[in-house]
Amino acid sequence: MKRNDNLTMLMDFYELTMAKGYFENGMKDIITYFDMFFRKIPDGGGFAIMAGVQQLVEYLKKLSFDEEDIEFLRSKKIFGEDFLEYLKNFRFSSDVWVVPEGTPIFPGEPIVTVRGPAIEAQLIETMVLLTINHQSLIATKSNRIVRAAQGRPVMEFGSRRAQGYDGAIYGARAAYIGGCVGTACTLSERDYGIPATGTMAHSWVQMFPTELDAFRAYARTYPNSCSLLVDTYNVLKSGIPNAIRVFDEELKPNGYRPKSIRIDSGDMTYLSRKARKMLDDAGYPDCKIIASNALDEYIIRDILMQGAQIDIFGVGERLITSRSEPVFGGVYKLVGVEKDGEIIPKIKLSENVEKITLPGFKQVWRLFDNESGKAMADVITLHDEVIESGKPYELFDPEYTWKRKTIDNFTARPLLQKVFDGGKCIFKERPINEIRDFCAKSTDELWSEVCRFENPHKYYVDLSEKLWSVRKTLLDKH
Amino acid sequence: MKRNDNLTMLMDFYELTMAKGYFENGMKDIITYFDMFFRKIPDGGGFAIMAGVQQLVEYLKKLSFDEEDIEFLRSKKIFGEDFLEYLKNFRFSSDVWVVPEGTPIFPGEPIVTVRGPAIEAQLIETMVLLTINHQSLIATKSNRIVRAAQGRPVMEFGSRRAQGYDGAIYGARAAYIGGCVGTACTLSERDYGIPATGTMAHSWVQMFPTELDAFRAYARTYPNSCSLLVDTYNVLKSGIPNAIRVFDEELKPNGYRPKSIRIDSGDMTYLSRKARKMLDDAGYPDCKIIASNALDEYIIRDILMQGAQIDIFGVGERLITSRSEPVFGGVYKLVGVEKDGEIIPKIKLSENVEKITLPGFKQVWRLFDNESGKAMADVITLHDEVIESGKPYELFDPEYTWKRKTIDNFTARPLLQKVFDGGKCIFKERPINEIRDFCAKSTDELWSEVCRFENPHKYYVDLSEKLWSVRKTLLDKH
Repeated sequence: MKRNDNLTMLMDFYELTMAKGYFENGMKDIITYFDMFFRKIPDGGGFAIMAGVQQLVEYLKKLSFDEEDIEFLRSKKIFGEDFLEYLKNFRFSSDVWVVPEGTPIFPGEPIVTVRGPAIEAQLIETMVLLTINHQSLIATKSNRIVRAAQGRPVMEFGSRRAQGYDGAIYGARAAYIGGCVGTACTLSERDYGIPATGTMAHSWVQMFPTELDAFRAYARTYPNSCSLLVDTYNVLKSGIPNAIRVFDEELKPNGYRPKSIRIDSGDMTYLSRKARKMLDDAGYPDCKIIASNALDEYIIRDILMQGAQIDIFGVGERLITSRSEPVFGGVYKLVGVEKDGEIIPKIKLSENVEKITLPGFKQVWRLFDNESGKAMADVITLHDEVIESGKPYELFDPEYTWKRKTIDNFTARPLLQKVFDGGKCIFKERPINEIRDFCAKSTDELWSEVCRFENPHKYYVDLSEKLWSVRKTLLDKH
Repeated sequence: MKRNDNLTMLMDFYELTMAKGYFENGMKDIITYFDMFFRKIPDGGGFAIMAGVQQLVEYLKKLSFDEEDIEFLRSKKIFGEDFLEYLKNFRFSSDVWVVPEGTPIFPGEPIVTVRGPAIEAQLIETMVLLTINHQSLIATKSNRIVRAAQGRPVMEFGSRRAQGYDGAIYGARAAYIGGCVGTACTLSERDYGIPATGTMAHSWVQMFPTELDAFRAYARTYPNSCSLLVDTYNVLKSGIPNAIRVFDEELKPNGYRPKSIRIDSGDMTYLSRKARKMLDDAGYPDCKIIASNALDEYIIRDILMQGAQIDIFGVGERLITSRSEPVFGGVYKLVGVEKDGEIIPKIKLSENVEKITLPGFKQVWRLFDNESGKAMADVITLHDEVIESGKPYELFDPEYTWKRKTIDNFTARPLLQKVFDGGKCIFKERPINEIRDFCAKSTDELWSEVCRFENPHKYYVDLSEKLWSVRKTLLDKH
């Protein structure tokens, strides 16, 4: 059973006070355009990974106020009966475009665009942001950690330290999209198909009179998939020798091979190298070593550089909370209003220059170099502009406009795809492993310079000449 | 409607592989004792705040595997039919003790203790930790931010940046326990009684031809509670002058007073002081100033020291994710096993000394000085020990045992309270505002030295002589 609540009421209360305002000021049916975009890549990285679209779509499909909601809102003594009646009959009727899950995304690009009546487009703000911010944060972090592991499998182990139940459940989903091979979270497999695995905790070892007894019992219970946690007492003096003895006595004579040992404390470089040698010398070069203590991309990179002999990483709290940067700062801003069928672009200025928004109804194009297959640049255009693959196209820097370059040997793909049309869901659900594969493939399409953990090359996100003019006109006006 | 899912399957998969192991090794009915405790106070603070008990109790009450769960587990092809049958009939039958929500808690103290059959006590590990870790993290952060505001109200504004839906919903609940006056999250009021408020976003201002039109419309819609967001274009040149004009033209003539203005960008010290003067000069000294841009306890402390004129703080992402330290590292460890009716204490050693556990079935006592009413020390004892108020009691440092002190003018209160008795819930739910009041009162019972944000005085957590001996005996044995 999936968590199937209607989350309509998970909204900032100001969405409702504004909604009443639009309702009473005759503005509820004004067609508006809102963009979600983010300003800063977590951890100073070169790109983020889009995730959470599936859950956003599910939320939008269920959007409605039930009797209890209306009763609750009435009790606040702010809303009139006509407005409550409007909410009671409320049905989602907007258009929505999204960048598909697993896509690398960059600051300033619209990743969700909503076109619809003012109240509708406003009411969904909190959930659009909450859903995409959370999963994109974790998918981005997962992608970093997985890249640090250089092909070694990474498991998501963080449920117990997640920020709430959904933090664990959807966090496991996002981590899988970003590249993890699986999770420890059982429910995430049941409901989202993320492979869940697990072996033993320290308590298993403590439950028996000795570590040897504990290992022996485990090997007898799971001869086919014997994985032993070796750090309850002392890894090198007790854990590994006992593990080897049990492999020798319980598995080998019965034709089984051990699967792995796990180390959860101590110095991973030192212990894993010693452990590897002991296992090899005992005739178990195929027994994998799993490491799992407070890991992240930096520690994994460093211990691998030092020659740590680790085959699989279990990553917990630093992944499931994106501990080094636990906020994905996506925002949702009004970018246009329709008047007599025409789109009037809207801008938000700010004392903080980086908070100025990009006006108008837009599309994002990714341009791939035909020779290398690599992504060269993204271009944000007005929605009805088309960038034709192979036709000469002039890129220019939106800040330093004299920096110009004409390209022609490229393929252009639009990133924003329509998922709701007049309130009707036209989203095609993809299997989670396809999203994960797509993410891996799309990450590979970036130059390695963009993929550095620190100080990456800044990927080009340009504006079309038309969009640039729209922004300039509005800026000059204010 | 509360989110009412059965979260039984939200567990690390190893709980199930171990459970099968206990089941097949004839160990499923061994009575075990598990403690949850934490090792490090977030942000280097002097104490943490317990939270999440209500949700933990609700989870335990619902604990059961339904047909779909069993079917899913069967599909994993690891578990035999007898074990699956056992899970199908599984009912929670353990005893549980918890420290009440809102209580200041310290490293090493058991804050949840479970006594029950091995499988049961093990299966609930992930949810015990997830529930208490998350809410205690946010309650602790909220308490810090609220103390920094020195009596000024703090609102929780972070839903859009929370780590998942429950991160927002239960985060708002925990923030309220820690001392926030309310939340922006509508659902958290509907389901948990956390007062929700809200006014307008920048999009409201952008929707109108001018800022003045937007303010005027809002004042007409909400003459009684007019609060205006003044930083869409320029706070001092446009926002405040327009606000004052609308107060003059729309409110004053009709006998209304403005409620507040909100500033969401720019330098808060500078802008709030200027804004205060402009409002005062215009005859609105009663109009409050709300600040809300990337605040936390450090920024609030600093801008108040600089004379910022802010009456209310809205705190978002840095509270709802506890951004500066987004993990509350609670763990759940086996501390004892019953054999022939006797409790055999269990210990977990580690290469990392701070990871060594405190064995045995325990109670935590808080000792209050009768003169000042302040908490002097906590003493962890064996569960059946009693510390009698007023009777001479010798405290000693568990590390430096020669440091001793006898006290007598004190009142001792046990912190761990029983909430499940043989699987039966005996927990008495408290209204959320009572928990919040209790937290404020309990925080006041700490010496101000313990409450410092940086480098606080370390509160004493001692062991009873008996418990100290139990630990020493086990350490010497290994």
